[in-house]
Amino acid sequence: MKQLNPLGPIERGLRPPQHAQLWEADAPLTLESGGSLPSVVVAYETWGELNEDASNGVLVCHALSGDSHAAQHDDEDDAGWWDLLIGPGKAIDTHRYFVICSNVLGGCRGTTGPNFTRPEGDQPYGADFPVVTVGDMVEVQQRLVYSLGIEKLAAVVGGSLGGLQALTWAIDQPNRLGAAIVLAASPRLSSQGIAFDVVGRNAIRHDAHFQGGQYYNDEAPEAGLALARMLAHITYLSDESMRAKFDPTRLQPRAIETGFESVFSVGTYLAHQGDRFVERFDANSYVTLTTAMDLFDLGDTPEAIAKSLAPAQCRWLFLSFSSDWLYPAAASQRLVDALVAQGRSVSSCVIESPAGHDSFLLEDSMVLGTRMISSVLAAQSGDTGPIRVPEEPRPGQPTNIFFTNRLDYGLILRLMPECASIVDLGCGNGELLSILRDRNHSPLLGIERDAREVAQSVGRGLDTIHADVDQGLAAIPDHSFDVALLSQTLQSVVDVVGVLQEIVRIADRGIVSFPNFAHAPLREMFVREGRLPKEEGLYAYDWYDTPNRRFPSILDFQELCGKIGIQIDDAIYLDSSKGIEVSDDPNLNADVAVVAIRRADR
Amino acid sequence: MKQLNPLGPIERGLRPPQHAQLWEADAPLTLESGGSLPSVVVAYETWGELNEDASNGVLVCHALSGDSHAAQHDDEDDAGWWDLLIGPGKAIDTHRYFVICSNVLGGCRGTTGPNFTRPEGDQPYGADFPVVTVGDMVEVQQRLVYSLGIEKLAAVVGGSLGGLQALTWAIDQPNRLGAAIVLAASPRLSSQGIAFDVVGRNAIRHDAHFQGGQYYNDEAPEAGLALARMLAHITYLSDESMRAKFDPTRLQPRAIETGFESVFSVGTYLAHQGDRFVERFDANSYVTLTTAMDLFDLGDTPEAIAKSLAPAQCRWLFLSFSSDWLYPAAASQRLVDALVAQGRSVSSCVIESPAGHDSFLLEDSMVLGTRMISSVLAAQSGDTGPIRVPEEPRPGQPTNIFFTNRLDYGLILRLMPECASIVDLGCGNGELLSILRDRNHSPLLGIERDAREVAQSVGRGLDTIHADVDQGLAAIPDHSFDVALLSQTLQSVVDVVGVLQEIVRIADRGIVSFPNFAHAPLREMFVREGRLPKEEGLYAYDWYDTPNRRFPSILDFQELCGKIGIQIDDAIYLDSSKGIEVSDDPNLNADVAVVAIRRADR
Repeated sequence: MKQLNPLGPIERGLRPPQHAQLWEADAPLTLESGGSLPSVVVAYETWGELNEDASNGVLVCHALSGDSHAAQHDDEDDAGWWDLLIGPGKAIDTHRYFVICSNVLGGCRGTTGPNFTRPEGDQPYGADFPVVTVGDMVEVQQRLVYSLGIEKLAAVVGGSLGGLQALTWAIDQPNRLGAAIVLAASPRLSSQGIAFDVVGRNAIRHDAHFQGGQYYNDEAPEAGLALARMLAHITYLSDESMRAKFDPTRLQPRAIETGFESVFSVGTYLAHQGDRFVERFDANSYVTLTTAMDLFDLGDTPEAIAKSLAPAQCRWLFLSFSSDWLYPAAASQRLVDALVAQGRSVSSCVIESPAGHDSFLLEDSMVLGTRMISSVLAAQSGDTGPIRVPEEPRPGQPTNIFFTNRLDYGLILRLMPECASIVDLGCGNGELLSILRDRNHSPLLGIERDAREVAQSVGRGLDTIHADVDQGLAAIPDHSFDVALLSQTLQSVVDVVGVLQEIVRIADRGIVSFPNFAHAPLREMFVREGRLPKEEGLYAYDWYDTPNRRFPSILDFQELCGKIGIQIDDAIYLDSSKGIEVSDDPNLNADVAVVAIRRADR
Repeated sequence: MKQLNPLGPIERGLRPPQHAQLWEADAPLTLESGGSLPSVVVAYETWGELNEDASNGVLVCHALSGDSHAAQHDDEDDAGWWDLLIGPGKAIDTHRYFVICSNVLGGCRGTTGPNFTRPEGDQPYGADFPVVTVGDMVEVQQRLVYSLGIEKLAAVVGGSLGGLQALTWAIDQPNRLGAAIVLAASPRLSSQGIAFDVVGRNAIRHDAHFQGGQYYNDEAPEAGLALARMLAHITYLSDESMRAKFDPTRLQPRAIETGFESVFSVGTYLAHQGDRFVERFDANSYVTLTTAMDLFDLGDTPEAIAKSLAPAQCRWLFLSFSSDWLYPAAASQRLVDALVAQGRSVSSCVIESPAGHDSFLLEDSMVLGTRMISSVLAAQSGDTGPIRVPEEPRPGQPTNIFFTNRLDYGLILRLMPECASIVDLGCGNGELLSILRDRNHSPLLGIERDAREVAQSVGRGLDTIHADVDQGLAAIPDHSFDVALLSQTLQSVVDVVGVLQEIVRIADRGIVSFPNFAHAPLREMFVREGRLPKEEGLYAYDWYDTPNRRFPSILDFQELCGKIGIQIDDAIYLDSSKGIEVSDDPNLNADVAVVAIRRADR
C-alpha cells in the first residue's frame, strides 16, 4: 500500500476520511492528456453488501470539493455529504445496494493527486501533477469497481463534477452500468463558468506562497485558495438565495476571526467559507479538478453532443434545478435532447428550487428528485412498481366524469395500431402510457410540463421528459414514433400549427383528442345568451379566467388540417353526456373528438 | 492649484486625461462617514458653451473605471467613453448643452483620492483614504458645478456608478437639476453583486505588494487589482454575450503576453483586461469606489425606497437592460415604482440587449435609449416636439378602419371628465395621451409593454412606464388618478379580474373599450358554420393563432362587473362598420363598447 507523503503544515485537513480504505492500481495509468501516472492509490468507502451476482453496485461520484465520505456508516459517524440520499431505507438504499464512493483522481483526500510524492523522488508532484480529465477519473474508478468484483454497476450517480463522471461512465464504459443518474450537469461549462474558474486559479497561482505549487513544506497559498473558494461559492448559490440569506443583515456581519474584509454580512460568510476550505483542501488539487471540469466537453452543437453520447447504452435520468446558473437546466436539456434524438431511454426533470447549483445537496430541493432516483434504481433491480408522489388537488380542473375518468383513453386505444411506439405529448402522470405499456406498446416516451406529474410518471418506470410541448419538439427526429398522442391538450397550446406539424413529422400517425367548441349546447348558449358559452368539461370555465388559449371546433380543426397539409385518417366523435358515439353532424352533436392524422403527402 | 503627488512606477496611467482642468474646492469637505478632507482637487472636462441664463448645463457622471474624458473634444482627440451620446448633434448635443464631466472623489485620474498626498505629511493617503460615499462624490460635484456659474443643471446623466450619482443628485440637490437620467442602476447592489466586489477587494488587499495600501513608491499590487478587474469584468458582460464571444474559440486563446492562465480564450481575454487595467487604475481607488457602490443603499422595501426618493423634484428617465444581471431591470423598476407611487414625473424603459451591464456604453444597445435621453433633455429646454422612432409595420394588426383610425378615441373623450388626471394602461405610442394633453388633462401617465412604443411615447414628452399591465399595477396607490384607461386591451389581458379591480382602485373612474364578441355577425357565423367566428377588427384572427386571450361580450363584461363589485356608470356602444351608435340590444348590434366603471361601494 502506497504511503501518503508528508503534507506539511496543512496535513491535518488532507488525510483520507476516517472510514476510507486505500486501494492501489496494479498498472500505470495512461492519461488522456498523454502523460501517465506510474502508480495510483484510491481512497474509497462502501456501504451495504454486494449481492451474489454482483448486480447491486451503485457508484456515487462526488463533486469538486467532496470526498469518499458520501454518507454516515453509523450513527456515531461524521455526517456524509449525501446523507439525504444514501442510507438504510433511503433512495440509494444501503439495505438493497452496495454503494461505493471514491475520492477522485487529482483530489486531496487520499487518492493520488498533486500532494502525492512523485515516484522518481521525494518531492510531491505539486503543480507538476499532470492534467487529468474526467475520463481519467472514470478510468481509475472502473478499475477500482472491477477490483471489487463488479462487472456491471446498477447505476452511477452524481451531481456537478459527479454528474460529469456519471456522463463519462455511460460513454466510456457503456456495458458497465445499467443507469446513469446525472444531477446539475451539462455538456460543458459555459464560458462564464470557465471565466470564474480561471480567476480562481489565477488567484491561487498568484498567491505569494504558491511557489510554483511546491509549498507543501512551507506555508500554503491559503489566501489564493480562499479567494478561489469564495468566488466559486457565489456561483453555487443563486441571486435569490443570497438575497434571502444576507439582505436582512447586510451591514451586520457576523463577528468572525478572519483576515478578509468583514464589512458586509455576505463578506464574512464568504470569508468563513474561504477560511474553512483551506483547512480541508489542497490548492494544487483545486487547480487540477477545476481544470478537469473546464476541459470537460461533450460538444456545443446538438450533432456534436449526440455523437459524444452515442456509445452510451444505459437508462438515463437527468435532474437539473431552476435557479442553477452554473450548470443551468437549459444546458442539461441539451443532453436530454441529444439522447431523445437517438431514441435512448431517458427521463428528465427541472426541479424548482431557489438554492442554485448546490440544490442537489439539499433535502428541501431534492424531494421529487429523491423519489425519481429511487424509482430509476428500483427499475434497475427489476422493481417497476410506481413510487407514490402525493397527489395534490389541482384547482380549476373540470369535474365532468368524462374528463376525470378519461373515457377518451378507450377511444384513443381504438385508433392505436398494435404494438406501436408512442410519444405522449402532455402525458400527465403517465396513466395512459402505463395502459399502453400493459398492451405491449414500446418504446414509449412521455413529455410533460408539470414537474410533479413528471415525477409520478418516472415513478411508474416510464421514460418521461420534463418539457413544454409548445416549446417545440425539435429534438425528436422525423418518424421517430409510430404514434404521437395529444390528448385534451390542443385547447391550451399556443402554437397550434407548429405542434400539429411536429406531431405528423415525428410520428407516422397523430392521435389528437379535443373538446368541440361548436357542440350544440355551446352554440345555443352563445346565440341565445350572447355570452362566451360554457359546458362541463374543458369548456367549463368563465371567459375571464379560462386556462384555454384556443377554442377549436371539429370543423375548425378539419379546415386547419386541410390548410396545413395534414390528412385526417380516422375519427371518433362522442357525446360524452350520453356516453354515445356520434355520426350525425358531429360538429353539432359531439362534445369530444378523437382524430387520427398524418401528413397528407405520405 | 494643488499638485498631484508623485505616483511612482504606475504614474503614467494615473495622470488626469489630456484635456482635464483642475479645480480646487475652497473649503474642507466633511464626509458622510464622519471623516473629512481638508482639501479637494477635481479633474473635469467640459464641452459646449454655457448659455446666458446658465440653464443648459448637463452633468455627465462616469462609472467605476471611467474618468472625466467622456467624449472627444475634437477629431484628433482620444476617444471618450461616451462618444456615442455626447457631441455636436448627438443626444447630449454639445451645440445645445454645456456638458461637464468630472473624475469622482476617490478616483485616480486627477481628483483627490488615495494616491493624493495627505495634507499633514509627504505620504499618500493609500488605504487610509477615508470611506467616501456616492453622496460625498455628489457634494464635490455640486461645488464644482456651482463654481462654474450654474445654479441649476438641466440634467444629470449617468450609468452604473454614474447612475447612482444621478440618483443622489436628485435626492440631495433637489433644486439643482431639472432631470435625472439614470442608466443601469438600482436602489442598492444585490448581495451577489456585493459578494463579487468583496472577493475583488480581498484579492487586492491580499496581494503581497499591497503593503497596507502604501505601495506608491514600490511595486503596485497589480496581480490583485487585475484579479479584481477580471472578476468584475465577468459581471459586466452577460452569459449570452460571453458565449457568443468565446465559445467558438474556447480552446484557442489569443497569444498574449501575460502572467495569467492562458488555456481558455475567455481566460486570455480576462488576462488582457486585467493587465491593461492596472496600467490605468489605482488599487486603492478601486477599493474606495467599489466600497462606495456597495454602501449605496436607497432601501430594500418599497416604503424605504420611496422615503429615500421623496425629496427629489426632478423629471426622471430610467433605462435598464434586459441582460444586465449586476443592476438588473427588475431592481431599476423598484425605483420607478417608488416614484410612480409618489406621483412623480417618471419614464422608464427596459432595453433588450445581450450585452449585460455594459450595454449603456454600447451603441447597438443604446439606439432607443439615445433617443429617449435626447427627448428628455429637449423637454428640459422647452422643446417637446416628438422624436421620430421609425415605425415598423407590425404583423397581424387589424386593418378595420375603426381600429386603425382609433375612432374609439372620440368616444373615450366623451366619457372623460374635464381636466382629469389620467393613466393609460397600454398607451402604445402615446397618441391618445397626446390628444388628452392638448385638452389640458394633467398629470398623465402611460404604461406600455412594447419598448419601441415606450420610446415613441417618451419621445412625445409623455411620462411613460415600460411595464405589462398584467404584471400588476401594485405600485400605484389608491385613487392616484381621476381616470384609468384600458383601450382595446381587455381581450389580451390574462388576469381580467385583477386588472379591472386595479383600474377601479387606482382611479375614480375606469374607461374600458373592447370589441364585443357577441356581435350579431359573430353569433350568426358561429351558430351557422360551427367555427370560432371572425370579423374585421380585433376578432379578425383565426382560432389557432389569435393573440386574443379573452373573448368578452358586452353582457359577459356587465355580468363580471356585477360579480366583482364594479358599477358601470356610463357606456357607449358602436356599430363601427356603419359608424353609428347602438342603443337597441348593444350586445347583439354593437361591435365595440366603451364603458365607464367605478367601484360599486363608492
